Amino acid sequence: MAQNIYDREDFFAGYSTLPRSVKGLAGAPEWPAVRALLPPLRGRRIVDLGCGFGWFARFAAEEGAASVLALDLSENMLARARRESAHPAVTYDAADLDTLELPAASFDLAHGALAFHYVADFARLAGVVHRALAPGGALLFTVEHPIYMASRQPRWLALPDGGRAWPVDHYSVEGERRTDWFARGVLKYHRTLGTTLNTLIAAGFAIRHVNEWSPTPEQLADEPALADEIDRPMMVIIRADR
Amino acid sequence: MAQNIYDREDFFAGYSTLPRSVKGLAGAPEWPAVRALLPPLRGRRIVDLGCGFGWFARFAAEEGAASVLALDLSENMLARARRESAHPAVTYDAADLDTLELPAASFDLAHGALAFHYVADFARLAGVVHRALAPGGALLFTVEHPIYMASRQPRWLALPDGGRAWPVDHYSVEGERRTDWFARGVLKYHRTLGTTLNTLIAAGFAIRHVNEWSPTPEQLADEPALADEIDRPMMVIIRADR
Repeated sequence: MAQNIYDREDFFAGYSTLPRSVKGLAGAPEWPAVRALLPPLRGRRIVDLGCGFGWFARFAAEEGAASVLALDLSENMLARARRESAHPAVTYDAADLDTLELPAASFDLAHGALAFHYVADFARLAGVVHRALAPGGALLFTVEHPIYMASRQPRWLALPDGGRAWPVDHYSVEGERRTDWFARGVLKYHRTLGTTLNTLIAAGFAIRHVNEWSPTPEQLADEPALADEIDRPMMVIIRADR
Repeated sequence: MAQNIYDREDFFAGYSTLPRSVKGLAGAPEWPAVRALLPPLRGRRIVDLGCGFGWFARFAAEEGAASVLALDLSENMLARARRESAHPAVTYDAADLDTLELPAASFDLAHGALAFHYVADFARLAGVVHRALAPGGALLFTVEHPIYMASRQPRWLALPDGGRAWPVDHYSVEGERRTDWFARGVLKYHRTLGTTLNTLIAAGFAIRHVNEWSPTPEQLADEPALADEIDRPMMVIIRADR
């Protein structure tokens, strides 16, 4: 079973203060880029893998999705999602992405926001999602970028001639990474971008788009801290079609 | 026109001392991984983009390729290729990848070894290559990895808790990078991995495999300096099919 960090009170309290937790999709600067890669949602059957507070699930329902099955490991998350993001078309349910089973050819879109780096066996998950999609269906997800996650000491470094850089080391050494983020020892899984893409291809997906997300000039002017994302991507957005 | 660095005597003299220049494919540690992604060569029509000393062109001809059109910008390279890598099936010719034209549907495989990062307009090149391939044809190439190329100060840094890391900064700032490598001011073009892949997809290619190359344990035992490639990839191998 995956580490259920979101049900630890210290972590949950901290996570709940993030802009994306308070403001929802409007607090997630990558959201416009994600939205641009969405297929039409009206009348579609959607599964949201790692639904968190339900921001995307409710958005999809409001866009006219026929149904949204919104899954999360954390009962904390699900309780708040059911309370604050309820919609007749959305069903919230508990599921562990490491052991997920889904009915075959039952969804038109699988969505996952910053959840898959908690999954130990991405090949298993990719296979489950591919089988669960109807022909022509799409998988659209964000995941922590391996550039962000690779290093054993993932903190900005001063460069000798001025400026700063993000360290990359052990990039090709895949597997567990533990970081302190609102709690000690948060467990994530590092995979190279090549591995993520090859795993999708091996599962039968066609790679449609790969966006190593960075802000637009307008976003940067509004929120100067996003300059970090220009120096090194923290996340990658991938769309892959069945 | 692309910077013709390989026709500068200081650069050419230095480049000629590299293991891959002296030993050919056997001196290129990524070669086994590239070879594993090759389609069958017997009877096929091949274009080699940036053929250098002709090592790959001769290999392909010896594997039974029907024809190999081997192109390079550098007369230095071509002269040595014609002298040392001649084969009846291989034609060496001068071409600038920035202005390349190729006949439509005339090749079964396009190959490029560490040449495309010298190309300013990769979208143009991808389109030219896609049109030049017959249906079912393949593009297989290596290119410098954007992790390797992004930084304004691309040199190893000591980490505060020991060890070292490769700096990544300005990753999303695409365009020119100048480095001193056997000569001052060698001009390369930085593109994110996402841009390279999306450009191929937009040209009509299906992404088949993405290998951010690192050595095998056996290679590392033979050549400990390859540990660099485990910490940060210097190149990526991409196969994309028409």
